[in-house]
Amino acid sequence: MSDKAIGVDLGGTNLRVALVEVDGTEARILDQRRQLLQERSPHAVAQVLVQLCHDLDAAGAAPVGIGAAAMLHGTKGMVANAPNLGWRDVDFGALVAKDLGRPVSLENDLSAITWGEHRFGAARGFDDVICVFVGTGVGGGAVLCGELYRGAGNAALEIGHLKVHPGGRLCGCGQRGCLEAYAGGRALAELAREAPESLWLEIAGGDAEALHGGHLDQAAQRGDARAKEVVGRASIFLGQALASVATLFNPSCLLLGGTVWQGCAFLREEATRTLKELLPLPAAGWMQCVEATLEDDAGVLGAADLALAHRAAARGDHKHRR
Amino acid sequence: MSDKAIGVDLGGTNLRVALVEVDGTEARILDQRRQLLQERSPHAVAQVLVQLCHDLDAAGAAPVGIGAAAMLHGTKGMVANAPNLGWRDVDFGALVAKDLGRPVSLENDLSAITWGEHRFGAARGFDDVICVFVGTGVGGGAVLCGELYRGAGNAALEIGHLKVHPGGRLCGCGQRGCLEAYAGGRALAELAREAPESLWLEIAGGDAEALHGGHLDQAAQRGDARAKEVVGRASIFLGQALASVATLFNPSCLLLGGTVWQGCAFLREEATRTLKELLPLPAAGWMQCVEATLEDDAGVLGAADLALAHRAAARGDHKHRR
Repeated sequence: MSDKAIGVDLGGTNLRVALVEVDGTEARILDQRRQLLQERSPHAVAQVLVQLCHDLDAAGAAPVGIGAAAMLHGTKGMVANAPNLGWRDVDFGALVAKDLGRPVSLENDLSAITWGEHRFGAARGFDDVICVFVGTGVGGGAVLCGELYRGAGNAALEIGHLKVHPGGRLCGCGQRGCLEAYAGGRALAELAREAPESLWLEIAGGDAEALHGGHLDQAAQRGDARAKEVVGRASIFLGQALASVATLFNPSCLLLGGTVWQGCAFLREEATRTLKELLPLPAAGWMQCVEATLEDDAGVLGAADLALAHRAAARGDHKHRR
Repeated sequence: MSDKAIGVDLGGTNLRVALVEVDGTEARILDQRRQLLQERSPHAVAQVLVQLCHDLDAAGAAPVGIGAAAMLHGTKGMVANAPNLGWRDVDFGALVAKDLGRPVSLENDLSAITWGEHRFGAARGFDDVICVFVGTGVGGGAVLCGELYRGAGNAALEIGHLKVHPGGRLCGCGQRGCLEAYAGGRALAELAREAPESLWLEIAGGDAEALHGGHLDQAAQRGDARAKEVVGRASIFLGQALASVATLFNPSCLLLGGTVWQGCAFLREEATRTLKELLPLPAAGWMQCVEATLEDDAGVLGAADLALAHRAAARGDHKHRR
């Protein structure tokens, strides 16, 4: 039996709202809206979001699930920190629910992506999934025993803030030596700009402002010694972090994705090599590495399905998903 | 309503079998037997175990749960590897069940300890518990969302084999740079013996064979530079590993114990300092560090309670525990 829900992907600059039809382990986007966020106050964003929900579902029958690029406080829709939106301690879930006239579910974006890939994508059929996304930052999500695992304070799988080199490079979080300060897209772009007289600047067409991790990675692929050093270090730290995650969670599926992961072949290969080298045998024997397949859709599909799950739980029907 | 079960602690040299009465969140040992393992073949150990079960529970009414110092294969009682017993790929669960005439449950010893402390000890009342024990080796267990988490292949929380110093000291597992190769009691004893002309040898009463981590730690406490270096390095690696675990799991409770943890004040303080330094703020805000309180009883109490849980699950009664 198919069911409909609205999945929302709330990023730092963009809002995407999709009407999703879920049928067993299949989901498809029936209609969607994208909006650049002009005014980023919580009230303004909530208003836009609610308007788009009305556009897609005039009857207001579909439950709404949001995946937000934010650190959540507990599991009740409170945003503790959304750096790209400039929000701190905002009860965004309540704000949207009030405007919308019904409850909404709010999840961390990586949790929504992990759930989407677990239900409808590359991690389908796996009950213990760890997802690691290497994009501008580095983040993760977990499905354990078939359920989304969020941690006691909704802060689990902060893999970007594993200390891979204690005392090392300063991270955006204020601490030093975080994985994200080496292997995230923002960090790689910074590292690229630190030495602009290089092959990678040539690859970027001479535009230092446009430099990103992909240019560095291409330079490394072409054998440039400095690029190999910078991307190589990032890859080793990433591979170590992946090995740590796999050693601790013993997942059946390690799901990897994100723009940097997908766009940087040198980094991907070196990180995979390090992961294989460092992974204990028992964990290795149970684990399959897969690449994310739903791309940008994973978040809205996951958020929509989680909204259905929340509604079912509220109704006392725990079997809706399988 | 109270219920009875037999909890078994199967170590490398000793077998302990306890008749346990469980009443809500309280448990007590009614009677118990300890036996030094003379013959360590699986058949011989199973026979001794079954005999002790008969001694304690002639009627054979109490379900039997075993916590074993072993890597298990899946969750059906198959021992993949028990290095201290010299077992590989032994279906010990089936062996005991056959001799006993009824099913038994088999768990990794650290899982049994974690469950015991969660149900009856220092971690009572916490739903997301990560337990780390620093003894001869370094191991861990997890209770997530109130349930024991074992990983896809029963190999989760292998914290002793986190690579804290890739390419470093050789570990008993065959890989290099594992936490256990620095912070475990066996490693500390080896490190102590590498430089016997030292303050710690004096502390050990001049007996190089008797040297253990505690002697090194005492020398470090007295300010001995070399001891501080060796124990300090172990502590930093341990603190880093604890920070990684807390960053990834975001537990409400980090439960710490084990002979080395309890007996080595220098290591404990330095590791705690490193943990606090490296832990991301969100995870830190939700986490309480507690010391294990049940000592040697945690394993048999946990194994006994898990046996009751298994019986209840087999009967379709999922509510027995709360």
